[in-house]
Amino acid sequence: MLAPGIGRPKLEGQCALSQIIPVAPFDCVVFGGTGDLATRKLLPALWHRDADGQIPAEARIVAVSRKNFDDAAYRKFVEENLRPQLTADEKPLWARFLARLRHVTLDAEGEQGWPALADALKGGDAYVRVVYLATSPKFFGPIARRLVKQGLVTPLTRLVVEKPIGSDLASARRINDEIGAVIEESAIYRIDHYLGKETVQNLIALRFANSMFEPLWSSQWIDHVQITVAETVGLESRADYYDGSGALRDMVQNHLVQLLCLVAMEPPRAFAADAVRDEKLKVLRALSPVAPGSVVRGQYVAGAIAGTAVRSYADDLGKGRTSRTETFVAIKTEIANWRWAGVPFYLRTGKRLASKNSEIVIAFKPVPHSLFGEGVKLEANRLVVRLQPDEGITLRLMTKEPGPGGMRLRAAPLDLSFAEEFSVRFPEAYERLLMDVVRGNQTLFMRRDEVEAAWSWIDPLVREWERGSEAPKSYVAGSWGPAAATALIERDGRTWHEELA
Amino acid sequence: MLAPGIGRPKLEGQCALSQIIPVAPFDCVVFGGTGDLATRKLLPALWHRDADGQIPAEARIVAVSRKNFDDAAYRKFVEENLRPQLTADEKPLWARFLARLRHVTLDAEGEQGWPALADALKGGDAYVRVVYLATSPKFFGPIARRLVKQGLVTPLTRLVVEKPIGSDLASARRINDEIGAVIEESAIYRIDHYLGKETVQNLIALRFANSMFEPLWSSQWIDHVQITVAETVGLESRADYYDGSGALRDMVQNHLVQLLCLVAMEPPRAFAADAVRDEKLKVLRALSPVAPGSVVRGQYVAGAIAGTAVRSYADDLGKGRTSRTETFVAIKTEIANWRWAGVPFYLRTGKRLASKNSEIVIAFKPVPHSLFGEGVKLEANRLVVRLQPDEGITLRLMTKEPGPGGMRLRAAPLDLSFAEEFSVRFPEAYERLLMDVVRGNQTLFMRRDEVEAAWSWIDPLVREWERGSEAPKSYVAGSWGPAAATALIERDGRTWHEELA
Repeated sequence: MLAPGIGRPKLEGQCALSQIIPVAPFDCVVFGGTGDLATRKLLPALWHRDADGQIPAEARIVAVSRKNFDDAAYRKFVEENLRPQLTADEKPLWARFLARLRHVTLDAEGEQGWPALADALKGGDAYVRVVYLATSPKFFGPIARRLVKQGLVTPLTRLVVEKPIGSDLASARRINDEIGAVIEESAIYRIDHYLGKETVQNLIALRFANSMFEPLWSSQWIDHVQITVAETVGLESRADYYDGSGALRDMVQNHLVQLLCLVAMEPPRAFAADAVRDEKLKVLRALSPVAPGSVVRGQYVAGAIAGTAVRSYADDLGKGRTSRTETFVAIKTEIANWRWAGVPFYLRTGKRLASKNSEIVIAFKPVPHSLFGEGVKLEANRLVVRLQPDEGITLRLMTKEPGPGGMRLRAAPLDLSFAEEFSVRFPEAYERLLMDVVRGNQTLFMRRDEVEAAWSWIDPLVREWERGSEAPKSYVAGSWGPAAATALIERDGRTWHEELA
Repeated sequence: MLAPGIGRPKLEGQCALSQIIPVAPFDCVVFGGTGDLATRKLLPALWHRDADGQIPAEARIVAVSRKNFDDAAYRKFVEENLRPQLTADEKPLWARFLARLRHVTLDAEGEQGWPALADALKGGDAYVRVVYLATSPKFFGPIARRLVKQGLVTPLTRLVVEKPIGSDLASARRINDEIGAVIEESAIYRIDHYLGKETVQNLIALRFANSMFEPLWSSQWIDHVQITVAETVGLESRADYYDGSGALRDMVQNHLVQLLCLVAMEPPRAFAADAVRDEKLKVLRALSPVAPGSVVRGQYVAGAIAGTAVRSYADDLGKGRTSRTETFVAIKTEIANWRWAGVPFYLRTGKRLASKNSEIVIAFKPVPHSLFGEGVKLEANRLVVRLQPDEGITLRLMTKEPGPGGMRLRAAPLDLSFAEEFSVRFPEAYERLLMDVVRGNQTLFMRRDEVEAAWSWIDPLVREWERGSEAPKSYVAGSWGPAAATALIERDGRTWHEELA
């Protein structure tokens, strides 16, 4: 087996910047180890970190599920799922990764299988122990209690939980209470993988490692902010969960609100867990209640995306079901504090939209006066932080066209992603976040009070909808949502970013 | 002959942005038509504008000199000077350019040749008439008087004069008086080709066509400004003139001070001649007197540049002459107004320095507090406007290194020149400025009061040196000037830019 610290060869032209700092020895237990999240995200993330030589020799990965796999069967399962993605360079490292994997068959709500898990973790009490609950939230409490009861929660154990944490404030509190009754808050890592994205990190670097942006970062110079998370997919395999949740709870309460917090927070005293989370919490608590006229719900009807016909939401649900669940939501909100009062934040997310496109747009105010005459159109500056489909940060500036006469101006996009400067592979969000858990760094994870404050802002909106009888507005699959969502921003004299680009 | 508007083919990938807008028909008279400036700068500039199809069919170029050339001899002279630079694409256009050229032999201080000049301009009274005095300033007055006397100054005549306009306030006033007695200020174009450089224009676009820079553009966010014009050449052929002038009068009074004005001026109400010049004048009048301890004079001694040994200034002068003339000067000054008080402007120029390098550096203040811990070094942001050897604008920002762990930061240069965006040839400064003269646009030319205000600031320094007996400090050719120039900025805890880069 290869020694730790030995990784895949560097790409040509790759600079030595992104040096890999190995983490401490750890065990990683993945509940839901045969599920979608584990196979699509967690195992590939661990594999990439291993392939880069970041994972110590001692590290073990223990998958837990109800499936009747032994270690060999699980390794075969992982092999089938991941091996097709490997490059030729990486194959020599693959055996080392596979050898780390174990599987324990276990009943999360019963007593069966727990001694086998204890056995699999034997000898690891001095290691960091990452326990990742890639399961339905209803198992969070039961699993946490059994982990404690079986003596599996060591001083270095860190519990990672995925969204959704509840479906409203009350249920979120219940889940947090259940976990919190047996595990300390400082050991609980509530993950939102949007915060692990490279460009989201770079937004923080731009804001706080440079003196040039922060002076502009307020109502004085910023006109408005747009946050869009647009998906082209429909219900996929999550019909029952999704239909009980909807876009507001599934996406806005966590991803969009978290991004809003990073854009809007005051400079924390340090880039450290509680300092950052204290500032995000202040933003959450300053969110204005959403006025009924400032929200648009939508549900897709049949249409076409990239030339392929797709069904309506009702047909996706099937069995003749109809539903009032929103698959699209657009919200105009404000942050009622000294820095942001008067600056609208437009949030928007939906399924079956025209393209997969997640971005934060900081729209600066126009120049107060043009020196260049009425014939010259000056576009207001925009900083665009793109999360999907490709990551990148772009600043749209006005610049002079080269040429021997006059002052002809033109908007030009300026790439702040430094992709050429850093010719390295951008790690996936889960890679960073898993390593942060091993390091015990909670900065990019949500604290209990944050999650609950976000629900406090969402709850009244949901209640309002449930009280009323209004159906979500239809939008054709492959469009940018209901016409009312366009009207929401256009009536303020503004435009969604994709219509400018 | 080719029709006007027909120019050389576009380069591959060249975009249609830099469209050429033909100017009105004009005649261009160049006094000093066989001199260095005419052959190295003016004729190539006219040729490039012609090759791009910007010059109308009617336009004529009349060179004036004491040389006994007829038109054919002059064309041969120009052919010999310019033809080696032509590309294959351009050769078909060359005959059209040559056919525009005429030569008049004339005595600038006598009466001979003037009727021939009148004859050469016959039929051009309705055209714009550009009269370019590429001669010693002592001829400016005599030529202007004779032009008027001969009836050659039409309502559309524009007189272009080159530096130096005087060697102190009194002599500048004398020259301005002499010209001004016969030609209106609105027809006088005092050229400083530094203002015609593409990146200098782009600095104006960045400042005033974007809302993002102006809020930062003051003592609140800017730590200091550096303006460097470094040459590697020595005395060249101008020994007598230069030894009577020195770096302060030859370079600082015009080029460096003009650049300083563009960096520091308030936003003018319009990008128009008097609006811009009013603002520049305000800066000039706000320049603080230079304290004796805030200036360093230098003179080069023998050394080496790029591996080639070069002589001392005294040896370059020859004939056993010694001199107290400075070939290097560094100045720390301030602008005593509301925006800039407390922000040092460091100016520096010299001959026989380490590299040919002209640039403006806007050094922003460091972040007031680092979030990222003591181990992380945050470089303060710098906006660098490079005029030579290549033109470009770079913003040095801190950015996050991509990678799966921690917040590692690194300074990265960001190219604001949009060279890729605009894959066009950057025109030379003289090309733009000559076309501006034809268009009657004085924005980038110096008004009389500007030139005189600059001398008012320079004069006390010169008088101080003349009163004293201190010799300039020696510096080795190929260095960055005397050690005292480094000390001038280092004792403020700052560093010249090239030592950071």
